[in-house]
Amino acid sequence: MKFTELLTGAWAKNNSLLCVGLDPDPAKFPAHLKDQPDAIFRFCAAIADATADLACAFKPQIAYFAARRAEAQLEALIAHIHDKHPGVPVILDAKRGDIGSTAEQYAIEAFERYRADAVTVNPYMGRDSVEPWLAYPDKGVILLCRTSNPGGSDLQFQKVGAGGTALYELVAEKVAKEWNTTGQCALVVGATFPGEIARVREIVGDMPLLVPGIGAQGGDIEATVKAGRTAHCTGLMINSSRAILYASKGEDFADAARKVASATRDAINRYR
Amino acid sequence: MKFTELLTGAWAKNNSLLCVGLDPDPAKFPAHLKDQPDAIFRFCAAIADATADLACAFKPQIAYFAARRAEAQLEALIAHIHDKHPGVPVILDAKRGDIGSTAEQYAIEAFERYRADAVTVNPYMGRDSVEPWLAYPDKGVILLCRTSNPGGSDLQFQKVGAGGTALYELVAEKVAKEWNTTGQCALVVGATFPGEIARVREIVGDMPLLVPGIGAQGGDIEATVKAGRTAHCTGLMINSSRAILYASKGEDFADAARKVASATRDAINRYR
Repeated sequence: MKFTELLTGAWAKNNSLLCVGLDPDPAKFPAHLKDQPDAIFRFCAAIADATADLACAFKPQIAYFAARRAEAQLEALIAHIHDKHPGVPVILDAKRGDIGSTAEQYAIEAFERYRADAVTVNPYMGRDSVEPWLAYPDKGVILLCRTSNPGGSDLQFQKVGAGGTALYELVAEKVAKEWNTTGQCALVVGATFPGEIARVREIVGDMPLLVPGIGAQGGDIEATVKAGRTAHCTGLMINSSRAILYASKGEDFADAARKVASATRDAINRYR
Repeated sequence: MKFTELLTGAWAKNNSLLCVGLDPDPAKFPAHLKDQPDAIFRFCAAIADATADLACAFKPQIAYFAARRAEAQLEALIAHIHDKHPGVPVILDAKRGDIGSTAEQYAIEAFERYRADAVTVNPYMGRDSVEPWLAYPDKGVILLCRTSNPGGSDLQFQKVGAGGTALYELVAEKVAKEWNTTGQCALVVGATFPGEIARVREIVGDMPLLVPGIGAQGGDIEATVKAGRTAHCTGLMINSSRAILYASKGEDFADAARKVASATRDAINRYR
Protein backbone atom coordinates (compact mmCIF):
# COMPACT_ATOMS: atom_id res chain seq x y z
CA MET A 1 0.00 0.00 0.00
CA LYS A 2 1.13 3.57 -0.62
CA PHE A 3 2.83 5.37 2.25
CA THR A 4 0.34 8.23 2.12
CA GLU A 5 -2.57 5.80 2.36
CA LEU A 6 -0.97 3.91 5.23
CA LEU A 7 -0.37 7.18 7.06
CA THR A 8 -3.89 8.44 6.47
CA GLY A 9 -5.24 5.12 7.67
CA ALA A 10 -3.12 5.16 10.83
CA TRP A 11 -4.05 8.77 11.63
CA ALA A 12 -7.71 7.72 11.53
CA LYS A 13 -7.63 4.22 13.02
CA ASN A 14 -5.33 5.07 15.93
CA ASN A 15 -6.63 8.63 16.30
CA SER A 16 -3.02 9.63 16.51
CA LEU A 17 -0.48 12.06 15.10
CA LEU A 18 2.29 10.48 17.18
CA CYS A 19 5.32 9.00 15.44
CA VAL A 20 7.34 6.71 17.71
CA GLY A 21 11.04 7.14 17.06
CA LEU A 22 13.15 4.01 17.48
CA ASP A 23 16.67 5.19 18.44
CA PRO A 24 17.96 2.15 20.32
CA ASP A 25 20.92 2.93 22.57
CA PRO A 26 21.93 -0.30 24.36
CA ALA A 27 23.55 1.70 27.18
CA LYS A 28 20.05 2.80 28.15
CA PHE A 29 18.41 -0.64 27.87
CA PRO A 30 16.90 -2.46 30.85
CA ALA A 31 19.43 -4.72 32.55
CA HIS A 32 17.65 -7.95 31.58
CA LEU A 33 18.13 -7.19 27.88
CA LYS A 34 21.69 -5.94 27.91
CA ASP A 35 23.46 -9.26 27.35
CA GLN A 36 21.07 -10.60 24.72
CA PRO A 37 22.65 -10.91 21.26
CA ASP A 38 19.48 -9.54 19.66
CA ALA A 39 18.81 -6.96 22.37
CA ILE A 40 18.27 -4.14 19.86
CA PHE A 41 15.60 -6.08 17.99
CA ARG A 42 13.92 -7.28 21.17
CA PHE A 43 13.87 -3.82 22.72
CA CYS A 44 12.48 -2.09 19.64
CA ALA A 45 9.97 -4.83 18.83
CA ALA A 46 8.65 -4.68 22.40
CA ILE A 47 8.25 -0.90 22.12
CA ALA A 48 6.50 -1.29 18.76
CA ASP A 49 4.14 -3.96 20.09
CA ALA A 50 3.30 -1.78 23.10
CA THR A 51 2.57 1.36 21.10
CA ALA A 52 1.31 0.22 17.69
CA ASP A 53 -2.30 1.19 18.41
CA LEU A 54 -1.20 4.62 19.59
CA ALA A 55 1.06 5.64 16.71
CA CYS A 56 0.64 6.95 13.17
CA ALA A 57 4.15 5.77 12.23
CA PHE A 58 7.36 4.19 13.51
CA LYS A 59 10.67 5.82 12.73
CA PRO A 60 13.80 3.71 13.26
CA GLN A 61 16.99 5.79 13.11
CA ILE A 62 19.47 3.74 11.09
CA ALA A 63 22.58 5.28 12.71
CA TYR A 64 21.88 3.46 15.98
CA PHE A 65 21.82 0.14 14.16
CA ALA A 66 24.78 0.83 11.89
CA ALA A 67 26.99 1.87 14.81
CA ARG A 68 26.55 -1.64 16.26
CA ARG A 69 26.61 -3.89 13.20
CA ALA A 70 22.89 -4.42 13.77
CA GLU A 71 21.66 -4.25 10.18
CA ALA A 72 20.10 -7.71 10.43
CA GLN A 73 18.22 -6.61 13.53
CA LEU A 74 16.90 -3.56 11.69
CA GLU A 75 15.69 -5.79 8.85
CA ALA A 76 14.04 -8.09 11.37
CA LEU A 77 12.44 -5.18 13.20
CA ILE A 78 10.85 -3.68 10.11
CA ALA A 79 9.66 -7.13 9.00
CA HIS A 80 8.17 -7.62 12.48
CA ILE A 81 6.29 -4.31 12.30
CA HIS A 82 4.97 -5.07 8.81
CA ASP A 83 3.87 -8.51 9.99
CA LYS A 84 2.30 -7.62 13.33
CA HIS A 85 1.17 -4.04 12.73
CA PRO A 86 0.54 -3.75 9.00
CA GLY A 87 -1.47 -0.54 9.31
CA VAL A 88 1.39 1.50 10.75
CA PRO A 89 3.99 2.76 8.24
CA VAL A 90 7.72 2.57 8.90
CA ILE A 91 9.87 5.61 8.14
CA LEU A 92 13.58 4.84 7.86
CA ASP A 93 15.34 7.89 9.26
CA ALA A 94 18.52 7.88 7.19
CA LYS A 95 18.82 11.44 5.84
CA ARG A 96 20.58 10.17 2.74
CA GLY A 97 21.53 12.49 -0.08
CA ASP A 98 23.80 11.81 -3.07
CA ILE A 99 24.10 11.99 -6.86
CA GLY A 100 21.59 10.01 -8.87
CA SER A 101 23.56 6.81 -9.43
CA THR A 102 24.41 6.61 -5.72
CA ALA A 103 20.91 7.61 -4.62
CA GLU A 104 19.67 4.60 -6.61
CA GLN A 105 21.80 2.39 -4.37
CA TYR A 106 20.54 4.08 -1.22
CA ALA A 107 16.97 3.60 -2.44
CA ILE A 108 17.66 -0.12 -2.87
CA GLU A 109 18.97 -0.13 0.71
CA ALA A 110 15.96 1.64 2.19
CA PHE A 111 13.10 0.30 0.10
CA GLU A 112 14.19 -3.15 -1.11
CA ARG A 113 16.53 -4.34 1.61
CA TYR A 114 14.84 -2.78 4.66
CA ARG A 115 11.35 -2.54 3.12
CA ALA A 116 10.73 0.85 4.69
CA ASP A 117 7.55 2.66 3.64
CA ALA A 118 9.27 6.04 3.64
CA VAL A 119 12.72 7.53 4.11
CA THR A 120 14.17 10.85 5.18
CA VAL A 121 16.33 12.57 2.55
CA ASN A 122 18.65 15.61 2.62
CA PRO A 123 17.86 18.19 -0.10
CA TYR A 124 21.29 19.90 -0.28
CA MET A 125 22.24 18.17 -3.56
CA GLY A 126 19.04 19.17 -5.32
CA ARG A 127 16.34 17.66 -7.46
CA ASP A 128 18.20 14.94 -9.35
CA SER A 129 19.46 13.56 -6.03
CA VAL A 130 15.82 13.07 -5.00
CA GLU A 131 14.43 11.57 -8.19
CA PRO A 132 15.73 7.99 -7.68
CA TRP A 133 13.68 7.82 -4.48
CA LEU A 134 10.56 8.97 -6.31
CA ALA A 135 11.00 6.10 -8.77
CA TYR A 136 9.40 3.90 -6.09
CA PRO A 137 5.79 5.08 -6.50
CA ASP A 138 4.42 3.61 -3.27
CA LYS A 139 7.10 5.06 -1.04
CA GLY A 140 7.24 8.29 0.93
CA VAL A 141 10.16 10.70 0.54
CA ILE A 142 10.51 13.04 3.50
CA LEU A 143 12.89 15.91 2.83
CA LEU A 144 14.72 17.88 5.49
CA CYS A 145 13.40 21.41 5.49
CA ARG A 146 13.85 23.08 8.90
CA THR A 147 15.63 20.95 11.48
CA SER A 148 15.21 21.20 15.23
CA ASN A 149 18.88 21.37 16.26
CA PRO A 150 20.66 24.63 17.18
CA GLY A 151 22.83 24.59 14.04
CA GLY A 152 19.73 24.17 11.89
CA SER A 153 19.75 27.94 11.45
CA ASP A 154 23.29 28.07 10.05
CA LEU A 155 22.17 27.38 6.49
CA GLN A 156 18.39 26.88 6.63
CA PHE A 157 17.70 30.35 7.98
CA GLN A 158 19.85 32.16 5.43
CA LYS A 159 17.86 34.60 3.33
CA VAL A 160 17.95 33.68 -0.36
CA GLY A 161 17.05 35.90 -3.28
CA ALA A 162 15.57 39.38 -3.10
CA GLY A 163 12.31 38.69 -1.29
CA GLY A 164 13.66 37.78 2.13
CA THR A 165 12.83 34.11 1.67
CA ALA A 166 14.71 31.81 4.05
CA LEU A 167 16.42 28.76 2.59
CA TYR A 168 14.04 26.40 4.42
CA GLU A 169 11.10 28.23 2.79
CA LEU A 170 12.75 27.83 -0.61
CA VAL A 171 13.12 24.09 0.06
CA ALA A 172 9.42 23.92 0.98
CA GLU A 173 8.51 25.80 -2.21
CA LYS A 174 10.72 23.68 -4.44
CA VAL A 175 9.40 20.45 -2.99
CA ALA A 176 5.77 21.56 -3.12
CA LYS A 177 5.85 23.15 -6.57
CA GLU A 178 8.59 21.33 -8.50
CA TRP A 179 9.85 18.11 -6.93
CA ASN A 180 6.62 16.56 -5.64
CA THR A 181 5.20 15.69 -9.03
CA THR A 182 3.97 12.33 -7.78
CA GLY A 183 2.48 13.24 -4.39
CA GLN A 184 5.07 11.16 -2.52
CA CYS A 185 6.88 13.96 -0.70
CA ALA A 186 6.71 15.16 2.88
CA LEU A 187 8.94 17.52 4.89
CA VAL A 188 10.82 17.53 8.18
CA VAL A 189 10.13 20.67 10.22
CA GLY A 190 11.34 20.82 13.82
CA ALA A 191 8.96 21.42 16.71
CA THR A 192 11.31 23.99 18.19
CA PHE A 193 10.11 26.54 15.63
CA PRO A 194 6.28 26.69 15.61
CA GLY A 195 6.21 29.91 13.59
CA GLU A 196 8.19 28.18 10.91
CA ILE A 197 5.94 25.12 10.97
CA ALA A 198 3.04 27.50 10.27
CA ARG A 199 4.99 29.12 7.44
CA VAL A 200 5.78 25.73 5.89
CA ARG A 201 2.16 24.63 6.23
CA GLU A 202 1.14 27.79 4.38
CA ILE A 203 3.54 26.95 1.53
CA VAL A 204 2.87 23.22 1.13
CA GLY A 205 -0.89 22.85 1.61
CA ASP A 206 -1.82 19.44 2.98
CA MET A 207 1.60 17.81 2.56
CA PRO A 208 2.49 15.68 5.61
CA LEU A 209 5.07 17.15 7.99
CA LEU A 210 7.36 15.04 10.16
CA VAL A 211 8.01 17.05 13.30
CA PRO A 212 10.86 15.99 15.58
CA GLY A 213 11.83 17.87 18.69
CA ILE A 214 9.02 17.47 21.20
CA GLY A 215 10.04 15.95 24.51
CA ALA A 216 13.79 15.69 24.94
CA GLN A 217 14.42 18.50 22.46
CA GLY A 218 11.97 20.88 24.17
CA GLY A 219 9.40 21.66 21.50
CA ASP A 220 5.93 22.66 22.67
CA ILE A 221 3.07 20.34 21.73
CA GLU A 222 0.27 22.90 21.69
CA ALA A 223 2.19 25.34 19.51
CA THR A 224 3.29 22.54 17.18
CA VAL A 225 -0.20 21.17 16.63
CA LYS A 226 -1.83 24.55 16.15
CA ALA A 227 0.86 25.63 13.71
CA GLY A 228 1.03 22.44 11.70
CA ARG A 229 -2.39 20.77 11.53
CA THR A 230 -4.28 20.78 8.27
CA ALA A 231 -7.94 21.67 7.80
CA HIS A 232 -8.69 17.99 8.47
CA CYS A 233 -6.76 18.22 11.76
CA THR A 234 -4.17 15.76 10.49
CA GLY A 235 -1.06 16.36 8.35
CA LEU A 236 1.45 15.80 11.16
CA MET A 237 3.75 13.02 12.30
CA ILE A 238 4.94 14.38 15.63
CA ASN A 239 7.94 12.34 16.67
CA SER A 240 8.96 11.37 20.16
CA SER A 241 11.84 8.98 20.73
CA ARG A 242 13.76 9.11 24.00
CA ALA A 243 10.86 10.09 26.28
CA ILE A 244 8.97 6.97 25.18
CA LEU A 245 11.84 4.49 24.75
CA TYR A 246 13.48 5.18 28.08
CA ALA A 247 10.44 5.88 30.23
CA SER A 248 11.62 3.06 32.50
CA LYS A 249 14.90 1.22 32.76
CA GLY A 250 13.19 -1.75 34.40
CA GLU A 251 11.54 -4.89 33.05
CA ASP A 252 8.38 -2.78 32.71
CA PHE A 253 9.96 -0.62 30.00
CA ALA A 254 7.35 -1.49 27.37
CA ASP A 255 4.43 -0.75 29.70
CA ALA A 256 6.07 2.50 30.72
CA ALA A 257 6.64 3.36 27.07
CA ARG A 258 2.98 2.71 26.36
CA LYS A 259 1.91 5.05 29.15
CA VAL A 260 4.10 7.87 27.85
CA ALA A 261 3.04 7.26 24.25
CA SER A 262 -0.60 7.28 25.28
CA ALA A 263 -0.20 10.50 27.25
CA THR A 264 1.69 12.11 24.38
CA ARG A 265 -0.93 11.09 21.84
CA ASP A 266 -3.65 12.50 24.09
CA ALA A 267 -1.72 15.72 24.69
CA ILE A 268 -1.42 16.14 20.93
CA ASN A 269 -5.11 15.37 20.41
CA ARG A 270 -6.10 17.97 22.99
CA TYR A 271 -5.01 20.68 20.54
CA ARG A 272 -6.14 19.21 17.25
CA MET B 1 48.19 8.81 11.99
CA LYS B 2 46.19 11.93 11.26
CA PHE B 3 44.24 12.02 8.00
CA THR B 4 45.93 15.24 6.93
CA GLU B 5 49.36 13.70 7.48
CA LEU B 6 48.42 10.53 5.63
CA LEU B 7 47.11 12.59 2.74
CA THR B 8 50.19 14.83 2.62
CA GLY B 9 52.37 11.73 2.70
CA ALA B 10 50.47 10.04 -0.13
CA TRP B 11 50.51 13.19 -2.28
CA ALA B 12 54.31 13.19 -1.98
CA LYS B 13 55.18 9.50 -1.99
CA ASN B 14 52.89 8.56 -4.88
CA ASN B 15 53.30 11.91 -6.65
CA SER B 16 49.55 11.81 -7.07
CA LEU B 17 46.42 13.88 -6.55
CA LEU B 18 44.24 10.99 -7.75
CA CYS B 19 41.59 9.57 -5.42
CA VAL B 20 40.34 6.17 -6.54
CA GLY B 21 36.61 5.88 -5.90
CA LEU B 22 35.36 2.40 -5.01
CA ASP B 23 31.72 2.22 -6.15
CA PRO B 24 31.33 -1.53 -6.67
CA ASP B 25 28.40 -2.45 -8.90
CA PRO B 26 28.30 -6.25 -9.26
CA ALA B 27 26.38 -5.96 -12.54
CA LYS B 28 29.56 -4.48 -14.04
CA PHE B 29 31.98 -7.03 -12.55
CA PRO B 30 34.05 -9.41 -14.66
CA ALA B 31 32.25 -12.69 -15.23
CA HIS B 32 34.72 -14.77 -13.22
CA LEU B 33 33.89 -12.80 -10.04
CA LYS B 34 30.14 -12.58 -10.36
CA ASP B 35 29.23 -15.74 -8.50
CA GLN B 36 31.73 -15.34 -5.67
CA PRO B 37 30.09 -14.66 -2.30
CA ASP B 38 32.74 -12.05 -1.50
CA ALA B 39 32.90 -10.62 -5.03
CA ILE B 40 32.58 -7.03 -3.82
CA PHE B 41 35.53 -7.36 -1.48
CA ARG B 42 37.63 -9.22 -4.03
CA PHE B 43 36.88 -6.74 -6.79
CA CYS B 44 37.64 -3.66 -4.69
CA ALA B 45 40.72 -5.17 -3.02
CA ALA B 46 42.15 -6.07 -6.43
CA ILE B 47 41.56 -2.50 -7.64
CA ALA B 48 43.18 -1.12 -4.48
CA ASP B 49 46.21 -3.42 -4.81
CA ALA B 50 46.63 -2.44 -8.46
CA THR B 51 46.43 1.32 -7.85
CA ALA B 52 47.77 1.92 -4.32
CA ASP B 53 51.07 3.41 -5.53
CA LEU B 54 49.19 5.73 -7.90
CA ALA B 55 46.62 7.17 -5.51
CA CYS B 56 46.51 9.80 -2.77
CA ALA B 57 43.35 8.24 -1.28
CA PHE B 58 40.73 5.54 -1.70
CA LYS B 59 37.06 6.46 -1.43
CA PRO B 60 34.60 3.59 -0.97
CA GLN B 61 30.98 4.69 -1.45
CA ILE B 62 29.00 3.03 1.33
CA ALA B 63 25.69 3.00 -0.61
CA TYR B 64 26.99 0.31 -2.97
CA PHE B 65 27.79 -1.93 -0.02
CA ALA B 66 24.62 -1.19 1.97
CA ALA B 67 22.38 -1.94 -1.02
CA ARG B 68 23.75 -5.51 -1.03
CA ARG B 69 24.11 -6.34 2.66
CA ALA B 70 27.87 -6.11 2.15
CA GLU B 71 28.84 -4.26 5.32
CA ALA B 72 31.21 -7.05 6.33
CA GLN B 73 32.92 -6.79 2.94
CA LEU B 74 33.34 -3.04 3.43
CA GLU B 75 34.92 -3.63 6.84
CA ALA B 76 37.23 -6.23 5.32
CA LEU B 77 38.13 -3.95 2.42
CA ILE B 78 39.14 -1.03 4.63
CA ALA B 79 41.10 -3.37 6.90
CA HIS B 80 42.83 -4.77 3.81
CA ILE B 81 43.81 -1.29 2.61
CA HIS B 82 45.10 -0.30 6.08
CA ASP B 83 47.08 -3.53 6.25
CA LYS B 84 48.56 -3.64 2.75
CA HIS B 85 48.72 0.06 1.88
CA PRO B 86 49.07 1.91 5.17
CA GLY B 87 50.23 5.14 3.56
CA VAL B 88 47.02 5.69 1.58
CA PRO B 89 44.07 7.12 3.55
CA VAL B 90 40.54 5.76 3.19
CA ILE B 91 37.67 8.22 2.84
CA LEU B 92 34.26 6.72 3.58
CA ASP B 93 31.87 8.46 1.22
CA ALA B 94 28.69 8.44 3.29
CA LYS B 95 27.43 12.06 3.19
CA ARG B 96 25.90 11.67 6.61
CA GLY B 97 24.25 14.59 8.39
CA ASP B 98 22.08 14.53 11.51
CA ILE B 99 21.54 16.07 14.96
CA GLY B 100 24.37 15.71 17.46
CA SER B 101 23.23 12.57 19.28
CA THR B 102 22.66 10.77 15.98
CA ALA B 103 25.84 12.12 14.41
CA GLU B 104 27.69 10.51 17.34
CA GLN B 105 26.30 7.15 16.22
CA TYR B 106 27.26 7.77 12.60
CA ALA B 107 30.77 8.70 13.75
CA ILE B 108 31.00 5.39 15.59
CA GLU B 109 29.91 3.68 12.36
CA ALA B 110 32.47 5.45 10.16
CA PHE B 111 35.47 5.76 12.46
CA GLU B 112 35.21 2.88 14.95
CA ARG B 113 33.38 0.21 12.99
CA TYR B 114 34.78 0.84 9.51
CA ARG B 115 38.01 2.53 10.67
CA ALA B 116 37.85 5.10 7.88
CA ASP B 117 40.42 7.90 8.00
CA ALA B 118 37.91 10.48 6.80
CA VAL B 119 34.23 10.76 5.98
CA THR B 120 32.04 12.95 3.78
CA VAL B 121 29.39 14.94 5.67
CA ASN B 122 26.40 17.03 4.57
CA PRO B 123 26.36 20.58 6.02
CA TYR B 124 22.61 21.29 5.72
CA MET B 125 21.96 20.77 9.45
CA GLY B 126 24.72 23.13 10.54
CA ARG B 127 27.60 23.28 12.95
CA ASP B 128 26.38 21.13 15.82
CA SER B 129 25.68 18.31 13.35
CA VAL B 130 29.37 18.40 12.40
CA GLU B 131 30.93 18.61 15.87
CA PRO B 132 30.59 14.92 16.82
CA TRP B 133 32.78 14.07 13.83
CA LEU B 134 35.41 16.57 14.93
CA ALA B 135 35.59 14.85 18.31
CA TYR B 136 37.82 12.27 16.60
CA PRO B 137 40.99 14.37 16.35
CA ASP B 138 42.85 12.17 13.86
CA LYS B 139 40.00 11.94 11.38
CA GLY B 140 39.17 14.03 8.33
CA VAL B 141 35.72 15.58 7.92
CA ILE B 142 34.95 16.44 4.32
CA LEU B 143 31.91 18.67 3.95
CA LEU B 144 29.78 18.93 0.83
CA CYS B 145 30.16 22.41 -0.59
CA ARG B 146 29.47 22.46 -4.35
CA THR B 147 28.41 19.16 -5.82
CA SER B 148 28.96 18.03 -9.38
CA ASN B 149 25.43 16.87 -10.21
CA PRO B 150 22.93 18.97 -12.22
CA GLY B 151 20.69 19.59 -9.20
CA GLY B 152 23.67 20.83 -7.22
CA SER B 153 22.69 24.34 -8.25
CA ASP B 154 19.15 24.10 -6.83
CA LEU B 155 20.24 25.14 -3.34
CA GLN B 156 24.01 25.58 -3.48
CA PHE B 157 23.90 28.32 -6.09
CA GLN B 158 21.23 30.38 -4.33
CA LYS B 159 22.44 33.85 -3.43
CA VAL B 160 22.38 34.41 0.32
CA GLY B 161 22.54 37.73 2.13
CA ALA B 162 23.11 41.11 0.56
CA GLY B 163 26.55 40.65 -1.02
CA GLY B 164 25.64 38.18 -3.75
CA THR B 165 27.34 35.30 -1.96
CA ALA B 166 26.22 31.87 -3.17
CA LEU B 167 25.25 29.29 -0.57
CA TYR B 168 28.24 27.10 -1.47
CA GLU B 169 30.54 30.08 -0.83
CA LEU B 170 28.87 30.61 2.54
CA VAL B 171 29.48 26.94 3.37
CA ALA B 172 33.14 27.36 2.41
CA GLU B 173 33.40 30.48 4.58
CA LYS B 174 31.68 28.90 7.57
CA VAL B 175 33.84 25.79 7.40
CA ALA B 176 37.06 27.75 6.91
CA LYS B 177 36.41 30.46 9.51
CA GLU B 178 34.12 28.90 12.10
CA TRP B 179 33.79 25.11 11.97
CA ASN B 180 37.36 24.05 11.21
CA THR B 181 38.79 24.94 14.59
CA THR B 182 40.87 21.77 14.65
CA GLY B 183 42.25 21.66 11.11
CA GLN B 184 40.36 18.44 10.31
CA CYS B 185 38.01 19.78 7.64
CA ALA B 186 38.06 19.52 3.87
CA LEU B 187 35.42 20.29 1.23
CA VAL B 188 33.76 18.57 -1.72
CA VAL B 189 33.74 20.75 -4.83
CA GLY B 190 32.72 19.22 -8.15
CA ALA B 191 35.03 19.24 -11.17
CA THR B 192 32.18 20.37 -13.39
CA PHE B 193 32.57 23.92 -12.07
CA PRO B 194 36.25 25.00 -12.30
CA GLY B 195 35.41 28.66 -11.68
CA GLU B 196 33.77 27.66 -8.45
CA ILE B 197 36.72 25.48 -7.45
CA ALA B 198 38.89 28.59 -7.85
CA ARG B 199 36.47 30.64 -5.75
CA VAL B 200 36.47 28.00 -3.00
CA ARG B 201 40.26 27.80 -3.07
CA GLU B 202 40.35 31.59 -2.61
CA ILE B 203 38.11 31.32 0.45
CA VAL B 204 39.65 28.32 2.21
CA GLY B 205 43.41 28.75 1.73
CA ASP B 206 45.23 25.43 1.72
CA MET B 207 42.30 23.28 2.90
CA PRO B 208 42.14 19.99 0.94
CA LEU B 209 39.41 19.75 -1.69
CA LEU B 210 37.83 16.46 -2.75
CA VAL B 211 36.87 16.89 -6.40
CA PRO B 212 34.47 14.36 -7.94
CA GLY B 213 33.25 14.59 -11.48
CA ILE B 214 36.18 13.98 -13.79
CA GLY B 215 35.77 11.11 -16.21
CA ALA B 216 32.21 9.78 -16.30
CA GLN B 217 30.77 13.06 -15.06
CA GLY B 218 32.62 15.14 -17.67
CA GLY B 219 34.80 17.51 -15.64
CA ASP B 220 37.95 18.81 -17.28
CA ILE B 221 41.25 17.81 -15.67
CA GLU B 222 43.32 20.81 -16.76
CA ALA B 223 40.75 23.35 -15.59
CA THR B 224 40.25 21.47 -12.31
CA VAL B 225 43.94 21.33 -11.46
CA LYS B 226 44.65 24.94 -12.40
CA ALA B 227 41.66 26.15 -10.41
CA GLY B 228 42.20 24.04 -7.34
CA ARG B 229 45.91 23.46 -6.70
CA THR B 230 47.57 25.20 -3.79
CA ALA B 231 50.86 27.09 -3.89
CA HIS B 232 52.54 23.76 -3.14
CA CYS B 233 50.79 22.21 -6.15
CA THR B 234 48.82 19.86 -3.91
CA GLY B 235 45.55 20.45 -2.02
CA LEU B 236 43.41 18.24 -4.26
CA MET B 237 41.94 14.75 -4.14
CA ILE B 238 40.62 14.38 -7.67
CA ASN B 239 38.28 11.43 -7.70
CA SER B 240 37.72 8.98 -10.50
CA SER B 241 35.56 5.91 -9.96
CA ARG B 242 33.84 4.30 -12.93
CA ALA B 243 36.53 5.02 -15.55
CA ILE B 244 39.07 3.13 -13.42
CA LEU B 245 36.88 0.39 -11.94
CA TYR B 246 35.31 -0.70 -15.19
CA ALA B 247 38.20 -0.13 -17.60
CA SER B 248 37.88 -3.81 -18.56
CA LYS B 249 35.17 -6.37 -17.92
CA GLY B 250 37.64 -9.21 -18.38
CA GLU B 251 39.95 -11.06 -16.03
CA ASP B 252 42.47 -8.27 -16.67
CA PHE B 253 40.26 -5.70 -14.92
CA ALA B 254 42.87 -4.83 -12.30
CA ASP B 255 45.62 -4.34 -14.86
CA ALA B 256 43.28 -2.24 -16.98
CA ALA B 257 42.32 -0.20 -13.92
CA ARG B 258 45.99 0.40 -13.19
CA LYS B 259 46.59 1.66 -16.71
CA VAL B 260 43.69 4.13 -16.50
CA ALA B 261 44.68 5.23 -12.99
CA SER B 262 48.26 5.77 -14.12
CA ALA B 263 47.16 7.78 -17.15
CA THR B 264 44.79 9.84 -15.02
CA ARG B 265 47.44 10.56 -12.42
CA ASP B 266 49.83 11.62 -15.17
CA ALA B 267 47.21 13.78 -16.87
CA ILE B 268 46.61 15.52 -13.54
CA ASN B 269 50.34 15.97 -12.94
CA ARG B 270 50.80 17.54 -16.37
CA TYR B 271 48.93 20.62 -15.10
CA ARG B 272 50.22 20.85 -11.54
